[in-house]
Amino acid sequence: MKRPLPSLRLTVAAIVGLATAMPASAQFAKPEDAIKYRKSVMTLQFNHFGRIAAMANGKVPFDAKVAAENAEVLATIVRLAPAGFVDGSDKGETKAKPEIWTEMDKFRANASRLREEADKLNAAAKSGSLDAIKAAVGETGKVCKGCHDSYQKE
Amino acid sequence: MKRPLPSLRLTVAAIVGLATAMPASAQFAKPEDAIKYRKSVMTLQFNHFGRIAAMANGKVPFDAKVAAENAEVLATIVRLAPAGFVDGSDKGETKAKPEIWTEMDKFRANASRLREEADKLNAAAKSGSLDAIKAAVGETGKVCKGCHDSYQKE
Repeated sequence: MKRPLPSLRLTVAAIVGLATAMPASAQFAKPEDAIKYRKSVMTLQFNHFGRIAAMANGKVPFDAKVAAENAEVLATIVRLAPAGFVDGSDKGETKAKPEIWTEMDKFRANASRLREEADKLNAAAKSGSLDAIKAAVGETGKVCKGCHDSYQKE
Repeated sequence: MKRPLPSLRLTVAAIVGLATAMPASAQFAKPEDAIKYRKSVMTLQFNHFGRIAAMANGKVPFDAKVAAENAEVLATIVRLAPAGFVDGSDKGETKAKPEIWTEMDKFRANASRLREEADKLNAAAKSGSLDAIKAAVGETGKVCKGCHDSYQKE
């Protein structure tokens, strides 16, 4: 029998950590885990939105199937980041401004808008209409920019 | 008018990069972008699978709704990683073994199995049966471990 590799041991350790250190509702053993998680979500958002935006902006040829696939993934992913902004995760390797935690309601309203716009983009992409996609990319991009302007350090 | 923050400029730069440096089918401007992307996918897989596994292993109380939400996200995310293993991304900040690229068919078969097991886990979680979830977590975990044993450096 092969011995478990570090990644698997890490999984087990994380699960045990969940059991001993956290209430059932909490999702991260340590603030840095939450930071790593939300950065990963942002990386995926950047990639999947970017692929659709590149088509909307005429930078790569429009492929309705690829646009629809990416919009579907994006609509799932945009629901994930807010959970990563847990209390205590304003310190460390993060560009998140402290205002996120002092204006959490406003920050969550931004997240809610992002979900709405990503859902509209998903519907537009499913329709196959490049014009509809262009409009939805514009609106989604505005929400991205607005939130980064307000809550991301340079 | 506020000037764009770095993150937005990066988006624009990435989109322009897509236009000038890549065929329409390619998804990453640079190999390190692909590495960052697939690591982000792994982080999300680790988190969302881990939350279900913690319940399956009795480490946190079973919450059918939370399990179903995480399984739904997982079923989307497990479809993403293979695209990140592009040619040339075997070098750099990665624990990916070179065998991934010399045995790509076998590697892709692992990815395909992961999708199947994650879909079964998703169905099990939707059913609300903890026993079904436990069985599906076990099978999904085996695929994770098998692939890491074969293709991840220690």
